Amino acid sequence: DRVRFDILREKRTGFPEAVFAPGKSDEDIINIIRTVGDVIVTRLPPERAERIMDGLDLGDDYTADYHETARVLAVRSGEPERLGRIGVLSAGTSDIPVAEEARVVAEESGCEVLTAYDVGVAGIHRLLEPLQDMLESDVKVLIVVAGMEGALPSVVAGLVDVPVIAVPTSVGYGVGEGGFAALNSMLQSCSPGIGVVNIDNGFGAAVLAVKILRAFAGD
Amino acid sequence: DRVRFDILREKRTGFPEAVFAPGKSDEDIINIIRTVGDVIVTRLPPERAERIMDGLDLGDDYTADYHETARVLAVRSGEPERLGRIGVLSAGTSDIPVAEEARVVAEESGCEVLTAYDVGVAGIHRLLEPLQDMLESDVKVLIVVAGMEGALPSVVAGLVDVPVIAVPTSVGYGVGEGGFAALNSMLQSCSPGIGVVNIDNGFGAAVLAVKILRAFAGD
Amino acid sequence: DRVRFDILREKRTGFPEAVFAPGKSDEDIINIIRTVGDVIVTRLPPERAERIMDGLDLGDDYTADYHETARVLAVRSGEPERLGRIGVLSAGTSDIPVAEEARVVAEESGCEVLTAYDVGVAGIHRLLEPLQDMLESDVKVLIVVAGMEGALPSVVAGLVDVPVIAVPTSVGYGVGEGGFAALNSMLQSCSPGIGVVNIDNGFGAAVLAVKILRAFAGD
Amino acid sequence: DRVRFDILREKRTGFPEAVFAPGKSDEDIINIIRTVGDVIVTRLPPERAERIMDGLDLGDDYTADYHETARVLAVRSGEPERLGRIGVLSAGTSDIPVAEEARVVAEESGCEVLTAYDVGVAGIHRLLEPLQDMLESDVKVLIVVAGMEGALPSVVAGLVDVPVIAVPTSVGYGVGEGGFAALNSMLQSCSPGIGVVNIDNGFGAAVLAVKILRAFAGD
Amino acid sequence: DRVRFDILREKRTGFPEAVFAPGKSDEDIINIIRTVGDVIVTRLPPERAERIMDGLDLGDDYTADYHETARVLAVRSGEPERLGRIGVLSAGTSDIPVAEEARVVAEESGCEVLTAYDVGVAGIHRLLEPLQDMLESDVKVLIVVAGMEGALPSVVAGLVDVPVIAVPTSVGYGVGEGGFAALNSMLQSCSPGIGVVNIDNGFGAAVLAVKILRAFAGD
Amino acid sequence: DRVRFDILREKRTGFPEAVFAPGKSDEDIINIIRTVGDVIVTRLPPERAERIMDGLDLGDDYTADYHETARVLAVRSGEPERLGRIGVLSAGTSDIPVAEEARVVAEESGCEVLTAYDVGVAGIHRLLEPLQDMLESDVKVLIVVAGMEGALPSVVAGLVDVPVIAVPTSVGYGVGEGGFAALNSMLQSCSPGIGVVNIDNGFGAAVLAVKILRAFAGD
Amino acid sequence: DRVRFDILREKRTGFPEAVFAPGKSDEDIINIIRTVGDVIVTRLPPERAERIMDGLDLGDDYTADYHETARVLAVRSGEPERLGRIGVLSAGTSDIPVAEEARVVAEESGCEVLTAYDVGVAGIHRLLEPLQDMLESDVKVLIVVAGMEGALPSVVAGLVDVPVIAVPTSVGYGVGEGGFAALNSMLQSCSPGIGVVNIDNGFGAAVLAVKILRAFAGD
Amino acid sequence: DRVRFDILREKRTGFPEAVFAPGKSDEDIINIIRTVGDVIVTRLPPERAERIMDGLDLGDDYTADYHETARVLAVRSGEPERLGRIGVLSAGTSDIPVAEEARVVAEESGCEVLTAYDVGVAGIHRLLEPLQDMLESDVKVLIVVAGMEGALPSVVAGLVDVPVIAVPTSVGYGVGEGGFAALNSMLQSCSPGIGVVNIDNGFGAAVLAVKILRAFAGD
Ligand SMILES: Nc1ncnc2c1ncn2[C@@H]1O[C@H](COP(=O)(O)O)[C@@H](O)[C@H]1O
Ligand SMILES: Nc1ncnc2c1ncn2[C@@H]1O[C@H](COP(=O)(O)O)[C@@H](O)[C@H]1O
Ligand SMILES: Nc1ncnc2c1ncn2[C@@H]1O[C@H](COP(=O)(O)O)[C@@H](O)[C@H]1O
Ligand SMILES: Nc1ncnc2c1ncn2[C@@H]1O[C@H](COP(=O)(O)O)[C@@H](O)[C@H]1O
Ligand SMILES: [Mg+2]
Ligand SMILES: [Mg+2]
Ligand SMILES: [Mg+2]
Ligand SMILES: [Mg+2]
Ligand SMILES: [Mg+2]
Ligand SMILES: [Mg+2]
Ligand SMILES: [Mg+2]
Ligand SMILES: [Mg+2]
Repeated sequence: DRVRFDILREKRTGFPEAVFAPGKSDEDIINIIRTVGDVIVTRLPPERAERIMDGLDLGDDYTADYHETARVLAVRSGEPERLGRIGVLSAGTSDIPVAEEARVVAEESGCEVLTAYDVGVAGIHRLLEPLQDMLESDVKVLIVVAGMEGALPSVVAGLVDVPVIAVPTSVGYGVGEGGFAALNSMLQSCSPGIGVVNIDNGFGAAVLAVKILRAFAGD
Repeated sequence: DRVRFDILREKRTGFPEAVFAPGKSDEDIINIIRTVGDVIVTRLPPERAERIMDGLDLGDDYTADYHETARVLAVRSGEPERLGRIGVLSAGTSDIPVAEEARVVAEESGCEVLTAYDVGVAGIHRLLEPLQDMLESDVKVLIVVAGMEGALPSVVAGLVDVPVIAVPTSVGYGVGEGGFAALNSMLQSCSPGIGVVNIDNGFGAAVLAVKILRAFAGD
Repeated sequence: DRVRFDILREKRTGFPEAVFAPGKSDEDIINIIRTVGDVIVTRLPPERAERIMDGLDLGDDYTADYHETARVLAVRSGEPERLGRIGVLSAGTSDIPVAEEARVVAEESGCEVLTAYDVGVAGIHRLLEPLQDMLESDVKVLIVVAGMEGALPSVVAGLVDVPVIAVPTSVGYGVGEGGFAALNSMLQSCSPGIGVVNIDNGFGAAVLAVKILRAFAGD
Repeated sequence: DRVRFDILREKRTGFPEAVFAPGKSDEDIINIIRTVGDVIVTRLPPERAERIMDGLDLGDDYTADYHETARVLAVRSGEPERLGRIGVLSAGTSDIPVAEEARVVAEESGCEVLTAYDVGVAGIHRLLEPLQDMLESDVKVLIVVAGMEGALPSVVAGLVDVPVIAVPTSVGYGVGEGGFAALNSMLQSCSPGIGVVNIDNGFGAAVLAVKILRAFAGD
Repeated sequence: DRVRFDILREKRTGFPEAVFAPGKSDEDIINIIRTVGDVIVTRLPPERAERIMDGLDLGDDYTADYHETARVLAVRSGEPERLGRIGVLSAGTSDIPVAEEARVVAEESGCEVLTAYDVGVAGIHRLLEPLQDMLESDVKVLIVVAGMEGALPSVVAGLVDVPVIAVPTSVGYGVGEGGFAALNSMLQSCSPGIGVVNIDNGFGAAVLAVKILRAFAGD
Repeated sequence: DRVRFDILREKRTGFPEAVFAPGKSDEDIINIIRTVGDVIVTRLPPERAERIMDGLDLGDDYTADYHETARVLAVRSGEPERLGRIGVLSAGTSDIPVAEEARVVAEESGCEVLTAYDVGVAGIHRLLEPLQDMLESDVKVLIVVAGMEGALPSVVAGLVDVPVIAVPTSVGYGVGEGGFAALNSMLQSCSPGIGVVNIDNGFGAAVLAVKILRAFAGD
Repeated sequence: DRVRFDILREKRTGFPEAVFAPGKSDEDIINIIRTVGDVIVTRLPPERAERIMDGLDLGDDYTADYHETARVLAVRSGEPERLGRIGVLSAGTSDIPVAEEARVVAEESGCEVLTAYDVGVAGIHRLLEPLQDMLESDVKVLIVVAGMEGALPSVVAGLVDVPVIAVPTSVGYGVGEGGFAALNSMLQSCSPGIGVVNIDNGFGAAVLAVKILRAFAGD
Repeated sequence: DRVRFDILREKRTGFPEAVFAPGKSDEDIINIIRTVGDVIVTRLPPERAERIMDGLDLGDDYTADYHETARVLAVRSGEPERLGRIGVLSAGTSDIPVAEEARVVAEESGCEVLTAYDVGVAGIHRLLEPLQDMLESDVKVLIVVAGMEGALPSVVAGLVDVPVIAVPTSVGYGVGEGGFAALNSMLQSCSPGIGVVNIDNGFGAAVLAVKILRAFAGD
């Protein structure tokens, strides 16, 4: 059993460690960064990011970048291994923070990311051009972020054959409050071949995209 | 108060009476038809329709038509007043019985109905041609029927300016079981100007379309 | 395909652009107004409206009106095309902001609007007179706004033949919290011919009413 | 403590024992009747009622009546104490079995019951006359049974001052499936002073009405 | 129809008008009181009550009493008609504000009210003595208020024959958050004859109790 | 890691293997019994039990007992280790099959089980005597089974200090359909110290009771 | 627009057409097969499969294979393009039909599939060996199927870095009825990088796996 | 009856009284402590604890300890009776406050408690060593606290035979918001023998563990 466990663990390398900021104090996060080194901190508001970066006192080996819309802080000692290209689309402007969380995490993990925001189904003619551009750039995975009724992943997966990772957002009100209308639309899509992650989980969508690219990285 | 009530009631004419068959015996329905005359019976399975038509003994003034896919029986003594043109679209083939319920009720109430079935978002290129035909035929209302994730009304209302009545169907499974994923998508649509009716309620959608046409009938 | 798309898009004109304020900064909204020109901004609190109007510096061609109860800001370069008459009813006094959102959006889009507020079913005798007045004024559509148990649209649609657009509100508590008791009542109404929109969506109800009037505008 | 318990228990007399048939075998029910004597069996289908009445072999002291629509079997050795008058209203024809369960249980417990069925809000003018008759007959309690959107108790309680016991029924489909739209409407009514019982619980409504009449019986 | 309506409305007298404070400004409430006279204002926090009472300037004919725990303000020109005796029980100490709302509204409407608070099923031996006292005082109705699992009305209705009005409260957390565990327990009680009102609706429970007493007031 | 795993697994002995019959064919179950030997099969209807016992052809070393009400088949090669005494209570007669599943599984695992059925809170005076008998018999754990509003575990845990395992049953209708009213009552109990298992999971309750007794078996 | 559409559609080739059998008659399915040729029919019970295969009368160019546990019928005119290796794991034996649906669809689309069934978290030591074998065989994607509490995908994704597609099944009862406990566990997993599909949607999981392999097929 | 009640009550001793702080004022809590003496106050934030401890003025006989992470204040006049050893595990760092509430309440009631925090299934190799240590220390009960998908109790109960009390926490977002994904996983666990308490109810879990230890204390 021992051997087996070690082998499985051996594969768990290369990823930057990820920390979910809510429920942790600034000191907690500073300590984790000091201990671990390469870290991605998610859901971190600007004022917290500033305090943490002030308190870090990183040596010369590390750089720290804060991405405000994505609310992500990335601390890195080197460049991530280059992996390949993915696309990130968002339906509305309010979905952009979640889309940006996906983009930043994917880029910090070595992906090249093409984006097209505000291309939702209420104005579907705006979707076709950027989608075609992405396909021509040979993206391997599409992350599609949408709130409200969450129809965009179904429409995209009905048009193209690239694997689609769908991220419902909590944008909406009334029956859409909390993102459940979008989530259920994506799970119940009439276009098969869509993998869904939790509401607002841009981070998880990026990790899945990265795992897909990594699985083929050596090939 | 008396006068007022009468005036309101005076407007309640011209519609065929509608009967919801479940929970009523064949005898109940035969009696209602004998008493009322012009009647539309909905949710009536073929074997019940046959027994009821056998038992009716209508006389020369009435004709009875049974529409099997729509599960609707129409008993009529004359032609309905001509009202105008509407379109009925369905996303999948499993949504057709609900779409047909809408079509038959609308036709029996005097509408001319254009239909386009199986034009859902998993193959969105199939939607554009029939939609354009309907617009060129000057339809005044579109009834859009969809189960699964219920995205079709959002896409249609994003493409055209005609009023859209959305009918969610109970086609689906898992999170879509019972039609709730479709219903919530339609209510939370990012395309405004969609009126939604209850799950599988093709009848109610047709009544609303007819009320719209009637409101302008004298103009 | 190209041709088809263009024709569909041609019909998408004449409407003022609508912007949902929550989740957008004041600067975002000022920029949209500068770019687009004729705009309706919804869900805009008074203090935000004041800041935005101060920052706008509209030329002589535009006027800006803020409707406080409706929380709607309308920026316009001309008069909307005249469309026809509709009625807006609300059940309780707490439902008035949603009813006013519907009224303002409909008026800004060219409708003449008659209103009757606080005419709910707990005192049903107050409903009959204004309802009769609306019918005699030849309203083409009724928008009926109600929270709590949401019974008013069923009662109205049981009394008159004009098409009814029902707007549930989030007014209520306990089982009515969030507006779901009202929403489900309206969808499950025993009076057919009611089109329902999302909870608190006065805007969407107005857009649907306007689309109905427009569909017949040229006739 | 002993004394106290006995006093409380002393008050628990006079009611016929009630048995909920589902989940019990015919033999179980026959045995209960043999042991207890005066019994009301609810939710008993006709074929089960027939088998049980055949198997009972009641002596001369007891009579057994089966009420088919109400699905209630009443076994009695004497007449119940006379209590007073109540009214039972139902919104639709499909709600009648639940209304009849309430009527039969109330009558077997000594109430005089006036009924008015199919007086729902889709045709509210049919409600006023029977409601006025009940008031003039001095009913002390109104049991109002409704499925679908469950609006009838709100309308009734908005018109009259008699206490209203509301019974939601499982009549409905889509969002009304199982009776929850009706239940929540009744609990969230804008007319205060309505006591609600479980979905389809005509029995419980009658027991509450009887308890009310009994509380004043000696006065 | 006119006559009928008038008769029904004639019965709607004698009750103090009730106003639900949330969503109304202090000025709104002052105006209502000036117009209507005898008014019960519910859900009114102490600081608002103070401001309103300062602003009222009632003449000599009116007195205003504010009940802090109940958050009720009562403005009265005379004594209410004497009606009879009821009991109000609460399960926990956190349920007391809702129980007090019921007590104050009932007293302001003419009831004599006996109370027993903090007598829930976690210490059921504390329940028996006050319950027996209430029965011996000939209470006609019991209002039973409980949050958490809401078991108290079932236990009480299993011990006594007086009609029980059950009020679920929003006291609880996790699965009990919002009061739904308590509400459903009360509706699904194994003790029949319980009328349930909305979560935290002490006001509605009192109105129902008062309607019951009034129905027998002339007898 | 290997060593550690082996130690953990070493503790996993002595329990009879348990098989959940639904979704397995008779042949599947016969094969499992042939392979494993000592087995408890749960949720097995009588007709399936008969076919399986016919097909088993156990040698002399094994005996097979089928418990009809509990729907449990026990196949055993010896007597289970004696563990100690527990009590099983059920609120209603419809809860008995679930209570019996708990009893049989506990007995087959070596417990001595005292039972008291139909002692629910609608007639709470019936509960006290059997509960006292159980305490005097030194039961170490009480399993309390209840459907409907599920109040019995709260009342029991409010009266005694023995650990309570609560089993909600799917007995109920309307808001109690499926057992959720009972489940939530038990989780939200005002009496602390209740461990809850899944709806109808008499088996799981017994396993927990057995694990408790075993943890102290050697002491 | 036209050009763009054509490009998008060009990519939609190579997949066998898939048909969801429920809601379609045997004749419908025979007609689709005759028209389309290469088809995968899912959710097809054995007796329907037999009738359809009898009615097909395929020429020499086609072979038809029915996979009973998977309930999938595959009609093919040639071999699918070879794509690469994936793994399919199931937690329990009742989850096997869904796992088999995934396996068959993946194999028919050109994947090589390794399987390990009944390796759920109740006996986690059974999981490690087959998981290690799959990793050593260089699987590119893992499909993990689980009902009940749906913990297996979280545990697997915590051990390995290969992308995980999680399929919740409707195996479960009480709170797990319908598969929602499993679905929500998978979406809310503490191990990031899991793409979730609808309940029981083995087909959709396979399509996503195939899309992933195809995206890299030419590389 | 009297005698019986007394005997039941006699067993209700030895436990410290517990007070749930939310909804009580500081004065309320000071008064309870003055009256009762030995008290555990739960859900008490640090600033409230400080004010209360300042206001207490305990004599020499009592000591007061505040546990900040657990938010528990314990006031004691002596040492609790020694009971035995239990283990408390938590899946994530955000679950620690709930785990600490369980630990402190158990220790204040006389248990010796071993803890292992942050040993969740996303890194399952961290779980095995502390789990083995607990077993070797002869813990009698394991309290397992987990949010997110709540898989940890299933994994633990699949590895060991000690009784498991599972505490879901409200840590999570999207579908896990409020703790329901974790709760349902625990109730629907594929590992039997888990007793579940309400979301975030570390207190209730400790009380159950203490009741288990006490039931065997005299043996
Ligand atoms: N934005 C995010 N959404 C979901 N999970 C996250 C996010 N950021 C970090 N995580 C995960 O949360 C775990 C960290 O949890 P914690 O130990 O509480 O910081 C890591 O394993 C990450 O995989
Ligand atoms: N009050 C409102 N309720 C619902 N939808 C609205 C509202 N106001 C604007 N919208 C719609 O929201 C869209 C604008 O979204 P956004 O691009 O995020 O501003 C427009 O297409 C409007 O149709
Ligand atoms: N605490 C309360 N809970 C529920 N309904 C109330 C309450 N107080 C007043 N009401 C009702 O609310 C209505 C007043 O609503 P409004 O006209 O909005 O003030 C009256 O008809 C009262 O019956
Ligand atoms: N943290 C807690 N979670 C759940 N129940 C608690 C908690 N702390 C105290 N209790 C229970 O709440 C009851 C006290 O409620 P109260 O009388 O309102 O203080 C006691 O019987 C305790 O068993
Ligand atoms: Mg969108
Ligand atoms: Mg579709
Ligand atoms: Mg209202
Ligand atoms: Mg009705
Ligand atoms: Mg309580
Ligand atoms: Mg019971
Ligand atoms: Mg499993
Ligand atoms: Mg965790």
